[in-house]
Amino acid sequence: MKQALRIGFLAIGDELLDGRVLDSNSVFLAAAIAEQGHRLTVRLTVPDEVEAIGEALDYLAKRADWIVVSGGLGPTTDDITCDVVSQWGKAPLRFDERSWNRIRSFFESRGMECPDTNRKQAEFPNGALVLDNPMGTAPGFLLEANGVRVVALPGVHLEFKRMLEEHLLPRLLGDGRQGDLRHFFRLFGARESSLAVLLDKLPLRPEESVHYQASFPHLSVMVRSKGSDALRWEYVLGLIRETVQPWLYGEGDARIASHVVDALMDRQWTVSIAESCTGGRIASLLTAIPGSSAVFNESVVTYSNESKIRKLGVSEEDLLEHGAVSRKVVTAMAEGALAESGAHVAVATSGIAGPGGGTETKPVGTVHIALAMRGEATVHQCLNLRGNRERVQERASWAVLKLVLDQLAAGKAKS
Amino acid sequence: MKQALRIGFLAIGDELLDGRVLDSNSVFLAAAIAEQGHRLTVRLTVPDEVEAIGEALDYLAKRADWIVVSGGLGPTTDDITCDVVSQWGKAPLRFDERSWNRIRSFFESRGMECPDTNRKQAEFPNGALVLDNPMGTAPGFLLEANGVRVVALPGVHLEFKRMLEEHLLPRLLGDGRQGDLRHFFRLFGARESSLAVLLDKLPLRPEESVHYQASFPHLSVMVRSKGSDALRWEYVLGLIRETVQPWLYGEGDARIASHVVDALMDRQWTVSIAESCTGGRIASLLTAIPGSSAVFNESVVTYSNESKIRKLGVSEEDLLEHGAVSRKVVTAMAEGALAESGAHVAVATSGIAGPGGGTETKPVGTVHIALAMRGEATVHQCLNLRGNRERVQERASWAVLKLVLDQLAAGKAKS
Repeated sequence: MKQALRIGFLAIGDELLDGRVLDSNSVFLAAAIAEQGHRLTVRLTVPDEVEAIGEALDYLAKRADWIVVSGGLGPTTDDITCDVVSQWGKAPLRFDERSWNRIRSFFESRGMECPDTNRKQAEFPNGALVLDNPMGTAPGFLLEANGVRVVALPGVHLEFKRMLEEHLLPRLLGDGRQGDLRHFFRLFGARESSLAVLLDKLPLRPEESVHYQASFPHLSVMVRSKGSDALRWEYVLGLIRETVQPWLYGEGDARIASHVVDALMDRQWTVSIAESCTGGRIASLLTAIPGSSAVFNESVVTYSNESKIRKLGVSEEDLLEHGAVSRKVVTAMAEGALAESGAHVAVATSGIAGPGGGTETKPVGTVHIALAMRGEATVHQCLNLRGNRERVQERASWAVLKLVLDQLAAGKAKS
Repeated sequence: MKQALRIGFLAIGDELLDGRVLDSNSVFLAAAIAEQGHRLTVRLTVPDEVEAIGEALDYLAKRADWIVVSGGLGPTTDDITCDVVSQWGKAPLRFDERSWNRIRSFFESRGMECPDTNRKQAEFPNGALVLDNPMGTAPGFLLEANGVRVVALPGVHLEFKRMLEEHLLPRLLGDGRQGDLRHFFRLFGARESSLAVLLDKLPLRPEESVHYQASFPHLSVMVRSKGSDALRWEYVLGLIRETVQPWLYGEGDARIASHVVDALMDRQWTVSIAESCTGGRIASLLTAIPGSSAVFNESVVTYSNESKIRKLGVSEEDLLEHGAVSRKVVTAMAEGALAESGAHVAVATSGIAGPGGGTETKPVGTVHIALAMRGEATVHQCLNLRGNRERVQERASWAVLKLVLDQLAAGKAKS
């Protein structure tokens, strides 16, 4: 098996360093080359300054097979990528008649006159391959110099993305090297350190490794191998799957709601939601998934007691006797939502998200959740969650979605 | 006046280089230090590898006064930031009893046993100042070495942000320039370039400047002065406030829902919400604000037509004749929610969030919104929004909240 290519990324632009602009190009690049099995080994961001760019190219050339540069190809005086790469690669600028014609027709087709300042966009380091830009005036280029291949692309995200797809990715693929294997397990409710204790015991080989990524409120476990065959890979994934099972909500897609939508679709079931302390967050997570309308018809947020009574048929006596944040009330909410909506399964939340409202017996973070299903006893859990208001709301919402997944899986196992 | 400090940023982690995780830490850091008048001069991202981290520190030390490092402080074997900084700074590791006690009580307070693997999180380079982590087990540290100050913080965004605010920003402020005045205007629906044309015309003095920060879906305008007196400062803010008025939803707090809650509280009013395409997002934005229960009793998500009829009294004829995504239906939804809930004002959304469901006359991004208020004609807007499903949902939700603010302000002006 050949080695994965090492790719370095250089983003150029003052706007990337003062918080004005998020560097979405690097995320897209990283994901795209990871899919091909290559590796982004280093990423650098520097301002529009000759010296900083030159030094960055030196640094990257020592650590990568390809350098992808984004930004600094525009027509203004602070766009200096081409000049710097030309000096750095000892490849004097050459004027490209064809590119100049393309730039002029870009303006003409929009009924505008082409400013003379854009002429510099038709200059490239000698020996460079010009990469046409189908969406804007700035062409990119590909130059081999100092033992490395430099691909310069515009910084505007849509242009960068399109040109990466058209010009770079096919060339990387053309190198035909085979890359790493990787797989993602998505967990909720697990702690990285406790999990590491369990996974460290598995008999992995040196070329196989496990990596953790906590991204509130979930934890991803990425398994990577630099050279297992298909059978060994399946075996390794099976070992890990078994170990992480209690917290596992899905593999691949990190969005728990996406797995809930899939599980409901499998059964052609619909879900209804009655939210109090989560305030619409569960519905919002579900409806963020394309196609969720197939499994979701309606939900309610019943924040006030009066609304719980009127919309869900919760009894006033239960509210008075047990309080809104109680097993009794959250169970009644879920059962009310089930009856009211005609859905196959209904979930409910009632809790104290904070910062106010906590008491000695029901401190901030106390959240009751329930799940009602036709012909089954209603399931209830009481959670004691940590964190500020938004974290309590988010954790409680995820706990409800995990409960749906677990109950659907249990039902399936039974039937 | 002191010189602006040069800050270098080093993000450590495989997950930042394979497209799994967006580096939100660097964006937050960049904006925060720009606000203090310092400069992020270079940003580097490297994998969890000893050599790569060491070389990156060398590179940054030559180009920055402070190096902020994020990531690699966890308890697992791929967390090596502390070891590498210790070697690099020739400061052998020292076990910190106090931190170890903090880590253990973190686990104990959650009723869990502290794994031995977490012990390494209590080791720091000798001479380093330990920076407590109020949200997790990984403390950070500050070390002076090789002519530069290295601040290591956890990579988890919420922890990074909180520790940056508590530990780094006050120290930079102490170190750098002082006495700047700052004020934030928060806008929705404005384009930076069009706004810049307007604001560039204002008669600002050289010591006064305007900065833009786009953070989807809003835009912040930060006004900074290095030496205006109180009267001049008020005058400058007044000029800018007048210019940005059409898009202004608030000053200070960036959360639009926080301003909506305040405006409703002022009137002692409640709001009810009927959501279709926004799927619970508006309710979720509102209920994320502490104290929102004073102005919000209930809302519904009516995703299906049947639910719109049953829960909001929308007429079947209107749905058939005009479709769910229409002025007629969204108006009926808002009026139904107003009547049903007894709130003072009710809002509704119905649209096509995509990716599917678009037609020639109603393409993806078509969203109707409406606001009903007792004794007033219902207000309607048709939006044509760009972007993927989640962006359409978020923009539509913000548009509704902006509509609430505008209508409350108009009502106030009238009364």
